[in-house]
Amino acid sequence: MNIKNGAEYIESLRKLHPRIYYKGKRISDVTRHPATSPHVRSAAMTYALASKKEYRDLATATSHLTGHTISRFTHVHQNVGDLIKKVKLLRLLGQKTGTCFQRCVGFDGINAVYSVAYETDQKYGTDYLERFKKWLIYIQDENLMVVGAMTDPKGDRSKGPADQPDPDQYVHVVERRSDGVVIRGAKLHMTGAVNSHEILVMPTTAMDDRSKDYAIVCAVPIDAPGITMIFGRQTSDDRRDHRERIDTGKPIFGSVGGEAVIAFEDVFVPNDRLFMNGETALTGALVYRFAAHHRANYGACKTGLMDVLIGAVSYLTQVQGTDKGSHVRDKITEMTHLAETLYSSSIACSAEGKPTPSGAYLVDTMLANVCKQNVTRFHFEVARLALDLAGGFIATLPSQYDLESEDVGHLVRKYFSGVEGIPTEERMKLARLIEAMTGGTALVESMHGAGSPQAQRIMIYREGDLEKKMKLAKALLGVPVKKRASQKKK
Amino acid sequence: MNIKNGAEYIESLRKLHPRIYYKGKRISDVTRHPATSPHVRSAAMTYALASKKEYRDLATATSHLTGHTISRFTHVHQNVGDLIKKVKLLRLLGQKTGTCFQRCVGFDGINAVYSVAYETDQKYGTDYLERFKKWLIYIQDENLMVVGAMTDPKGDRSKGPADQPDPDQYVHVVERRSDGVVIRGAKLHMTGAVNSHEILVMPTTAMDDRSKDYAIVCAVPIDAPGITMIFGRQTSDDRRDHRERIDTGKPIFGSVGGEAVIAFEDVFVPNDRLFMNGETALTGALVYRFAAHHRANYGACKTGLMDVLIGAVSYLTQVQGTDKGSHVRDKITEMTHLAETLYSSSIACSAEGKPTPSGAYLVDTMLANVCKQNVTRFHFEVARLALDLAGGFIATLPSQYDLESEDVGHLVRKYFSGVEGIPTEERMKLARLIEAMTGGTALVESMHGAGSPQAQRIMIYREGDLEKKMKLAKALLGVPVKKRASQKKK
Amino acid sequence: MNIKNGAEYIESLRKLHPRIYYKGKRISDVTRHPATSPHVRSAAMTYALASKKEYRDLATATSHLTGHTISRFTHVHQNVGDLIKKVKLLRLLGQKTGTCFQRCVGFDGINAVYSVAYETDQKYGTDYLERFKKWLIYIQDENLMVVGAMTDPKGDRSKGPADQPDPDQYVHVVERRSDGVVIRGAKLHMTGAVNSHEILVMPTTAMDDRSKDYAIVCAVPIDAPGITMIFGRQTSDDRRDHRERIDTGKPIFGSVGGEAVIAFEDVFVPNDRLFMNGETALTGALVYRFAAHHRANYGACKTGLMDVLIGAVSYLTQVQGTDKGSHVRDKITEMTHLAETLYSSSIACSAEGKPTPSGAYLVDTMLANVCKQNVTRFHFEVARLALDLAGGFIATLPSQYDLESEDVGHLVRKYFSGVEGIPTEERMKLARLIEAMTGGTALVESMHGAGSPQAQRIMIYREGDLEKKMKLAKALLGVPVKKRASQKKK
Amino acid sequence: MNIKNGAEYIESLRKLHPRIYYKGKRISDVTRHPATSPHVRSAAMTYALASKKEYRDLATATSHLTGHTISRFTHVHQNVGDLIKKVKLLRLLGQKTGTCFQRCVGFDGINAVYSVAYETDQKYGTDYLERFKKWLIYIQDENLMVVGAMTDPKGDRSKGPADQPDPDQYVHVVERRSDGVVIRGAKLHMTGAVNSHEILVMPTTAMDDRSKDYAIVCAVPIDAPGITMIFGRQTSDDRRDHRERIDTGKPIFGSVGGEAVIAFEDVFVPNDRLFMNGETALTGALVYRFAAHHRANYGACKTGLMDVLIGAVSYLTQVQGTDKGSHVRDKITEMTHLAETLYSSSIACSAEGKPTPSGAYLVDTMLANVCKQNVTRFHFEVARLALDLAGGFIATLPSQYDLESEDVGHLVRKYFSGVEGIPTEERMKLARLIEAMTGGTALVESMHGAGSPQAQRIMIYREGDLEKKMKLAKALLGVPVKKRASQKKK
Repeated sequence: MNIKNGAEYIESLRKLHPRIYYKGKRISDVTRHPATSPHVRSAAMTYALASKKEYRDLATATSHLTGHTISRFTHVHQNVGDLIKKVKLLRLLGQKTGTCFQRCVGFDGINAVYSVAYETDQKYGTDYLERFKKWLIYIQDENLMVVGAMTDPKGDRSKGPADQPDPDQYVHVVERRSDGVVIRGAKLHMTGAVNSHEILVMPTTAMDDRSKDYAIVCAVPIDAPGITMIFGRQTSDDRRDHRERIDTGKPIFGSVGGEAVIAFEDVFVPNDRLFMNGETALTGALVYRFAAHHRANYGACKTGLMDVLIGAVSYLTQVQGTDKGSHVRDKITEMTHLAETLYSSSIACSAEGKPTPSGAYLVDTMLANVCKQNVTRFHFEVARLALDLAGGFIATLPSQYDLESEDVGHLVRKYFSGVEGIPTEERMKLARLIEAMTGGTALVESMHGAGSPQAQRIMIYREGDLEKKMKLAKALLGVPVKKRASQKKK
Repeated sequence: MNIKNGAEYIESLRKLHPRIYYKGKRISDVTRHPATSPHVRSAAMTYALASKKEYRDLATATSHLTGHTISRFTHVHQNVGDLIKKVKLLRLLGQKTGTCFQRCVGFDGINAVYSVAYETDQKYGTDYLERFKKWLIYIQDENLMVVGAMTDPKGDRSKGPADQPDPDQYVHVVERRSDGVVIRGAKLHMTGAVNSHEILVMPTTAMDDRSKDYAIVCAVPIDAPGITMIFGRQTSDDRRDHRERIDTGKPIFGSVGGEAVIAFEDVFVPNDRLFMNGETALTGALVYRFAAHHRANYGACKTGLMDVLIGAVSYLTQVQGTDKGSHVRDKITEMTHLAETLYSSSIACSAEGKPTPSGAYLVDTMLANVCKQNVTRFHFEVARLALDLAGGFIATLPSQYDLESEDVGHLVRKYFSGVEGIPTEERMKLARLIEAMTGGTALVESMHGAGSPQAQRIMIYREGDLEKKMKLAKALLGVPVKKRASQKKK
Repeated sequence: MNIKNGAEYIESLRKLHPRIYYKGKRISDVTRHPATSPHVRSAAMTYALASKKEYRDLATATSHLTGHTISRFTHVHQNVGDLIKKVKLLRLLGQKTGTCFQRCVGFDGINAVYSVAYETDQKYGTDYLERFKKWLIYIQDENLMVVGAMTDPKGDRSKGPADQPDPDQYVHVVERRSDGVVIRGAKLHMTGAVNSHEILVMPTTAMDDRSKDYAIVCAVPIDAPGITMIFGRQTSDDRRDHRERIDTGKPIFGSVGGEAVIAFEDVFVPNDRLFMNGETALTGALVYRFAAHHRANYGACKTGLMDVLIGAVSYLTQVQGTDKGSHVRDKITEMTHLAETLYSSSIACSAEGKPTPSGAYLVDTMLANVCKQNVTRFHFEVARLALDLAGGFIATLPSQYDLESEDVGHLVRKYFSGVEGIPTEERMKLARLIEAMTGGTALVESMHGAGSPQAQRIMIYREGDLEKKMKLAKALLGVPVKKRASQKKK
Repeated sequence: MNIKNGAEYIESLRKLHPRIYYKGKRISDVTRHPATSPHVRSAAMTYALASKKEYRDLATATSHLTGHTISRFTHVHQNVGDLIKKVKLLRLLGQKTGTCFQRCVGFDGINAVYSVAYETDQKYGTDYLERFKKWLIYIQDENLMVVGAMTDPKGDRSKGPADQPDPDQYVHVVERRSDGVVIRGAKLHMTGAVNSHEILVMPTTAMDDRSKDYAIVCAVPIDAPGITMIFGRQTSDDRRDHRERIDTGKPIFGSVGGEAVIAFEDVFVPNDRLFMNGETALTGALVYRFAAHHRANYGACKTGLMDVLIGAVSYLTQVQGTDKGSHVRDKITEMTHLAETLYSSSIACSAEGKPTPSGAYLVDTMLANVCKQNVTRFHFEVARLALDLAGGFIATLPSQYDLESEDVGHLVRKYFSGVEGIPTEERMKLARLIEAMTGGTALVESMHGAGSPQAQRIMIYREGDLEKKMKLAKALLGVPVKKRASQKKK
């Protein structure tokens, strides 16, 4: 691991020169700009934990390629234990940052591409896995952060890639050369993009023969020529831009993952960084495996966030003198119950993980989809309960400027106090943290990250094996299991 | 109605000189300041509708005191028809503004105080109703906006008013003079306060004999000496403060009701503006009636907001090409179902309204509590469904500065487009409206306005008449209805 | 009202000779057979209330045809007050019987056919309304019970009436004569059929020109030649058949509505009893109006049942010594809340009722659908909460034979006792009542009676007026309201 | 394993002579009596699977005491793999029987008593573990079925064991002799009791010093003198008693676990069968460990039942021609999602299992409680969705006697048919299976088995570690972690 801790990670970013825009202006240093530096700090935590003895077992792994000690975020899962450690690492990071630490996207991309490259080679006689291993050893040894880039803009969603009026709505090859390809298009909602070192480009959906140019997997340095990033707006982001100590709610870390658009305006990719190039047969598997790994994560990191939120609300009820109420305890119980239900699915899909032909382990895909589906429900409910217990002042609290005002500061201090002995400022900080964690961007990300709710439902239906279940029922009833002619026609 | 339309209302505000702070600075003109003017415009809609023929039946009423045509918002409900018209007016205003128009708080305060003043006079031999009528005729004839001021800061919530370490945590009389009283304390979360003409102060809870000084009802001009207001922060309020055309989501109207703290630093109130002064017996009734009226409203105005939100999401799915999906239609159906369920309770508690001894009509209190309780659940679920259908870009969309940038504007336009023929800007506007209506302040207000969820549950339990229900069950079983000795002891 | 009370109603049934089967055997006297008599007694309550002064205002009405005092169940709603009184009457009957009293189906059929006959006459120049009025006056004056017969068997549900392999899967005309028609087919799930006097046959869905023979509305005496009924099984119906005093749970009244199949094996209907005969245009309206009235009812009668259930559970928690628990009170609160939410929709759709062209009032159809949709959710949840509070012995309680056994009666009495002073038998009765009201038939009926959940969702979507809602959103955003060319094509 | 398969198990029961009553009469042979034989057959499946090669890995284990191959149901979990295999075995058995197979209660009792006996010996210097091992080797080698007997009648639930007016409301020692003790009391809801060989008696709650006589753990043969069982009523049990082939819904296996009361009327227990006798310190741990194991199971066996139910409903929609509907697929998806969410918790609490001091593994107790809590919600929702898709005829279907009737059989066959080519009888069987699995006893058992919902909530709150969570929030806010004086007082 060349980059050994958070400070070195931050230093490494300063050597890169990606083209990033935010609110119409270019960002010159992501590690210092108020919009991006909180996200840099969250990602840095993934490096920091690896340098601390107590977390090393979770935060590092041994490379199956080199035998080196590497960051777990660059590891290819070799067994169920790896999958479970990942889950525990993600919950821990969620607890430590209270937000997205971004690095699991590239992690999941690495694992999905690895197993698919193996199978593509088997099917097409290509050598993608060897290329990929070389690149991966580089990532592991340097300890780089990779953004997994899957989601295309999609334009008119009633049409597939090949039928879009604008062919660039999905990333595709626009020129093929002997030494590589030129790609065009964009990837949206790219978590951690602006503070990553490398981009791992993957298709966003299964491709058919009409869409061969869209079946492209490759690695691109974050500051390769032709790449432009636009950093997205977040709820109440101006507070952060103004470095408001209290009102951001999160004085150190960011809200969600610092998502950005990555536009590829005719970017050249040399052959040794190409890991799929037109072989459409495995695109579906690639998307599905990436999605499964990523969906599994949400029951871990979001549980970590909920731990923080439950803690914040519990303490706030103490500050307000309501913590003994039976309905307060019942709601804390419910928040805990929902959080642990989510965590269960993350653990379960890992415990039920199985090896792919490449040897890389894959989570149980049914349970991973179930996990993410519950996130899209329970995170909102946990937020709702938190806001219920916190009280209406989450919506009406004066600003920290008022608290600090000579004219009205005394009124804010007096009338937003709680039980004796706790400074009003503390109550305000709690309110702002809860505000930041329960509304807007934070919840939308939970809903749509790793795939929208309907994407999971389609997979749950497909994997439900209704044929087997119908046989179980028929067996209990003594009904013939064979389909009748009338049904076969259907 | 001296003030005849929205423009005159805005003009009237310019003549007042309330002391208002926001982000540490004083606001000199609420009608022009970017933080407050959107809220002024929403409230102005309550005046505007009264001047339009098609809405006059809903927006005006005939004063039972003077026979004059008055704004419905200053009316004392005379029958079930009045209660139902109120509901329809509120839904209409929600549809027209997509936000809180603030004026129902004073409206409900007027109705609660009216009936309670009557009964206080009956019980104590006082003349509060006559005083109140005089003040009310002034409000009706001038067509003033009144902020109903009930919620106290409460400090340590495990203690009642008389046991607080700081006696000012509930508004109370600190000095009694022959010509009036001096009050001190504060009211929090005061909807529409900064753009109201008058404050109607009411106690926040039932008072006992130890808390006589807290049993105070009175009217105070918004700019009376000793009054200071602090305008609360809202989610993403900086966008509004910068007058960002697209990114505020709501180019004209505000988010929620522009809530503010009203601090009373020894404010003198003359006798003719005192409508309760130490008569604790009716404080519980006052709070309960105000709450019932106000809880009934939430199934009306929030339904109007949901109408807007359903419309925005429906149109966005058209823009994105997803509107034909069966799961899309099912979620639109669910949003509609929940909205109309809420509306049902508002209509029902009005249709079941009954006269108080004063003649003023009161909604059915059980159904009004049921109404608000459902708001605290369904508004979150409707928002969740809206965000589900809208898509992840709600959380990652670049700013309007990027859209307008010479450097990256073309990328935003290209990669955030939807179906052919609809400008990207339109899709962005929809996204920002949905963002503004589904996260943070907007939902917190729905949760806690008119009383927190637990407040309604307490009332639902109390009004459930379990004794009667137990008799019904016993009758069906042939079990003796009388309680046995063993039970009586309990 | 020729039949003046419950006893006369029961007497009247003994004069009829319908052909009814149950468990393979013919029932000779529905008023005495253990399977049917409990249902007879529930229906008799609709007659009984009309004879009691305190309920007369709800239970009777004045015929708009004759001016006679009639049972409300034979009345054509003349105004909003009628609609609301119906709701209150149904809740009252639910409270008095704890079950279905069956008579609202014919009531709703009468109201739907009345308004449709008027419009059919307008459109086709027929005289159906006059025929119907004559029949209705007979029903009103005699005070007969009418079963509204709509639901056909449907066979292969992926096919419409005209495409069924077996044409009899929907009731249709098989022969036309000068003096009438001959019909064949069946109606399923016919509530109250076996103890009704008359059948009002209606089509089950909108018919097109290929299905003219299926567009038939007519009245048939319950014992007309060619009619056979088969009484359906109910959960634990053997206990009732054995007249088990305790274990039926309901010693007097039945579970649900005593549903039966009515088979029409070539039944002749004379012309004066035909109220539609091939005029397909209004079939959709007929179904929809019947459904709307009927869906509105479910928020009333089921609320009555929930009142009983809440009472039973409340008392049982007293018997068990758990009634002071905060979670117990919270669950009672939730049950009450859900019940009153349902009731709200029934009241609201009535308060928002409007006259049809015939003058007969129709409930607000959106809110009526919303009402029933909530029944299909909340009744299960209320049952779940009841079972939660009641305890596991609902599933394991020994029989009343064991209670009465010389060998083990002392053990049952000892080990199923609760707090001191209340006989074990009382606790057992409560358990059996709760068992009967929360499982199996009772809940299935709530789910599917008046239309399955999806039927309501289709209507809620259709009536949601998305065009209007999209306009509201566009207006707030300053987006042009007109559809663009690209959208019009869709 | 002396008993090697289902047939030998059944044979073994015929050699016992327990005193069992049902509907007031004594049952002489549980293997042949219609009330009990279906439950015998379900339990026999646990023996049958052990004899089949494909299931042997799940259904058997190697005794850590003897090295013998034993039934897994008599095994003490030695590692996480054992815990996970148990979960898979239970789901498999749920799929094979569609009901409770009863044997996990004793299994969990064995595991709880084992680890507690070890710790009791450590604390008190007793030799309970040695006694228990001897008994357990007997159970393992003979392959006996053990009923874990925990739930006491509890009488007045507002009072503990020592304060009951009737001291027998909790099982207790009434006489101490040199060679053993005499116990009195009863255990309720005893799953599988009537077809077990042995009873493992455990206290139902943590005991204090006043309740030493209630701190009793012991093993008793099912037909020991003084033991009487009363078999509980189940929903629609008469159909089973009449051996109705179709209408029972389950032609082979029973509904739930055949629960019974076990009354102990002064039963003597010799010393070598006593595993706790007055050592109250570990009673809480015993109850908690038993509950944790047992709660973990519910996410496994009930998932197996849901597999059957989903299969039955899926096939029924094919039979009815509705299987292509988008809402049908969506509801099947939801049922699957809920089932797999439950399964996740069972797997997760097993994967996170840890050794107790004795070496016996215990599931993660937080996740086990979460698992059962979800069962009490999701099983009802899955049942509701099944009934939604099945249709209203579940509540109104005529009996099989009608199907077989010469008079009306043709009508039943004709009017309850579905798509062409599938016999009506098959549709009826499906309906009856769904009826049996979704109402009454089946769901009540899911609610209360392994502890009522509130019991889990208390544990979830207790294990939530709010102190740690508050620290996480404080760390993110830079708020001092130490409690202030004012808070310590609380």
